[in-house]
Amino acid sequence: METQDGGLNIYGGVLFKMGIKFASRMDNIKSSAIRELLKLTEIPDIISFAGGLPAPELFPVKEMQEVCVRVLEEDGKAALQYSTTEGFLPLRAKIAKQMSHLGMTCDAQNVLMTSGSQQGLEFTGKIFINEGDTVICESPSYLGALNAFKAYLPKFVEIPMDEDGMLIDELEKALEAHPDAKFIYTIPDFQNPTGRTMSLERRKRLMELAIKYEIPVVEDNPYGELRFEGEMLPSIKSFDTKGLVIHLGTFSKIFAPGLRLGWVVADTEVLQQYIKVKQGADLQCSTIAQREVDKFLEMFKLDDHIEKIKNVYRKRRDLMIETMRKEFPANVTFTVPQGGLFAWATLPEGQDAAHVLKLALEEKVAFVPGEPFYPNGGHANTCRLNYSNMPEDKIVEGIKRLGKVLRSLQ
Amino acid sequence: METQDGGLNIYGGVLFKMGIKFASRMDNIKSSAIRELLKLTEIPDIISFAGGLPAPELFPVKEMQEVCVRVLEEDGKAALQYSTTEGFLPLRAKIAKQMSHLGMTCDAQNVLMTSGSQQGLEFTGKIFINEGDTVICESPSYLGALNAFKAYLPKFVEIPMDEDGMLIDELEKALEAHPDAKFIYTIPDFQNPTGRTMSLERRKRLMELAIKYEIPVVEDNPYGELRFEGEMLPSIKSFDTKGLVIHLGTFSKIFAPGLRLGWVVADTEVLQQYIKVKQGADLQCSTIAQREVDKFLEMFKLDDHIEKIKNVYRKRRDLMIETMRKEFPANVTFTVPQGGLFAWATLPEGQDAAHVLKLALEEKVAFVPGEPFYPNGGHANTCRLNYSNMPEDKIVEGIKRLGKVLRSLQ
Repeated sequence: METQDGGLNIYGGVLFKMGIKFASRMDNIKSSAIRELLKLTEIPDIISFAGGLPAPELFPVKEMQEVCVRVLEEDGKAALQYSTTEGFLPLRAKIAKQMSHLGMTCDAQNVLMTSGSQQGLEFTGKIFINEGDTVICESPSYLGALNAFKAYLPKFVEIPMDEDGMLIDELEKALEAHPDAKFIYTIPDFQNPTGRTMSLERRKRLMELAIKYEIPVVEDNPYGELRFEGEMLPSIKSFDTKGLVIHLGTFSKIFAPGLRLGWVVADTEVLQQYIKVKQGADLQCSTIAQREVDKFLEMFKLDDHIEKIKNVYRKRRDLMIETMRKEFPANVTFTVPQGGLFAWATLPEGQDAAHVLKLALEEKVAFVPGEPFYPNGGHANTCRLNYSNMPEDKIVEGIKRLGKVLRSLQ
Repeated sequence: METQDGGLNIYGGVLFKMGIKFASRMDNIKSSAIRELLKLTEIPDIISFAGGLPAPELFPVKEMQEVCVRVLEEDGKAALQYSTTEGFLPLRAKIAKQMSHLGMTCDAQNVLMTSGSQQGLEFTGKIFINEGDTVICESPSYLGALNAFKAYLPKFVEIPMDEDGMLIDELEKALEAHPDAKFIYTIPDFQNPTGRTMSLERRKRLMELAIKYEIPVVEDNPYGELRFEGEMLPSIKSFDTKGLVIHLGTFSKIFAPGLRLGWVVADTEVLQQYIKVKQGADLQCSTIAQREVDKFLEMFKLDDHIEKIKNVYRKRRDLMIETMRKEFPANVTFTVPQGGLFAWATLPEGQDAAHVLKLALEEKVAFVPGEPFYPNGGHANTCRLNYSNMPEDKIVEGIKRLGKVLRSLQ
């Protein structure tokens, strides 16, 4: 295998100039296709449906000014000092309380603060995966999770989905075929990349299977609070009677990603593993960021803020879907998400979304081809479309341009 | 092997209740002895030389208030949004410039922001270590680094030190005996835990050996700017003509640890590996924290702030050393650090620092026994003593109490 700089891999690892030998796992870690694509989308005037960024105009900037001053006035020394690995206790207590929205009963002792939920995913890989182990995930699944897991050299078994999420019969077949699988990774609410939501019945059945096969479930839930319509579904963790579900949450989509604050909710004994790994990884999350978010939750109503976000994203979703219905050829299908940040389009079999992207960039519109979201590849005819980060007029204009490109390929 | 909760390890990994199987590496990750000890030291009225905490009374709280408001006023939306994995470019440029203090020539492209230098250490383990690989380090060495590396299951070869740092002849023997060793880990300035500094001549010789044996050097430098006397020595990286040195820095000891901002300086191609791993680990450091530190560096003089810290720590060190000279029995030896946060005491052969700690805690004084700093164990008669975090009167009183305990063991 040849490495980027032409060195030959003769050590079961990357051989670098001057004989530097990297670990084997580095062969398996690729720079995120999306992060690389995001660089392309920095071209001025581009209409980008590529990223997964929240709308910055909704960030509570004014409130944060108040909050920052208050935190430093009230206990500035503590805010700038080292603190515990687990995280700021009052904030963990508030998060535990917030989890009741999802039907979960937990307390601060079940919560570990992480640097975004991405860090929870990375820790999951580290804690569970030996080289060659099997990880079960939705097909497609979140690229950032797949990349985090890949560093630990697992095999992926993909479970097909329909509009109600993972096909549970297929999951059971996979569990039978892979009794040593390490965990099931799922994003039940407004999944990244498809925007699909797992039905209540499937959540229950998934939990039953997890208990039957004694397998942990990693429930990644960055978007669950961003439901535009219908009733909020209880989390899979809420049906967990055996301490098998590890639930990941984050402030990135309901508050601000720039603070890098997420959390893991788990049975205390499982959480102990995450805490140990957090110590070695970076000791703790930012003390001041934790105290700022805690102060924000004290001074303002997070739920009101979430309501504002939902109203804006709902409109953007409506416009994107409506415009796709008008502008896309009939043989292009797409999901209609009930919340979250993403829709998912499937082009006719044989079309290549990477080629479509190339044409789209000429029209100054961008999206993410779907193939990298399939850990075992394939499905080159799929596309992820983000609607949270573009204003309404640009959504309409961008989808029109994309429609023009797609019609030209008919 | 039996696990904490009594489960039997039959899978080459930890077997948990309900059949949850953790990865094998989890057997090798222990909760940091120091972090656990720090909990003990939260007993009220204790005089603690145990932690490695900076003096919070020196944190620039007032300045940070100004800075936080300015950052949010000037570009609050960007400060709360996702940003690049590499880090905030203006801050990286300022760090590159600051590195000239250490004789290094680098630019922003050589700098990756990390969540403290602890994260740089964790990434180093991930990037370099396959199971069973050899890592060469000082004996003793920084516990947090050893723990981070241990997750990747290396063997450690320890190089004895004297007052001028690693014994270079011993290093050469180790390199000959372990030609496949993955890297040399060193803290050349005011080492944690010993407070020792590697001489200029040894820095040059270490670099020559690294080039001869084509082995990377991980130069961990959290304290280098905190020199109380004598001339600042150029970093090992400053002698690196081959891109072999990975230099780790942090704002934790010269600014504030609560922000969790450190950096890696490396050859761009080596740095590319760190950037890939950072993507998977947590996407990026806090955007707002990076912009805050950048703004602080713009509005205030970091070097003036460092001068203030040095003046306070110098006095504390003087008092600790002076009092140890008076109060400790003659057969207890200790280092006299020229900078940094730690002194290192060696008790008579056969004495057990863990037992001394027990007696000391009864006198309401704490320190860290030295054994955990030796990756292969032993040296139970050593102690690490931190002087940065206690006011002067408590340093005198605490050392007196410790002296009393030590004299009682004669």
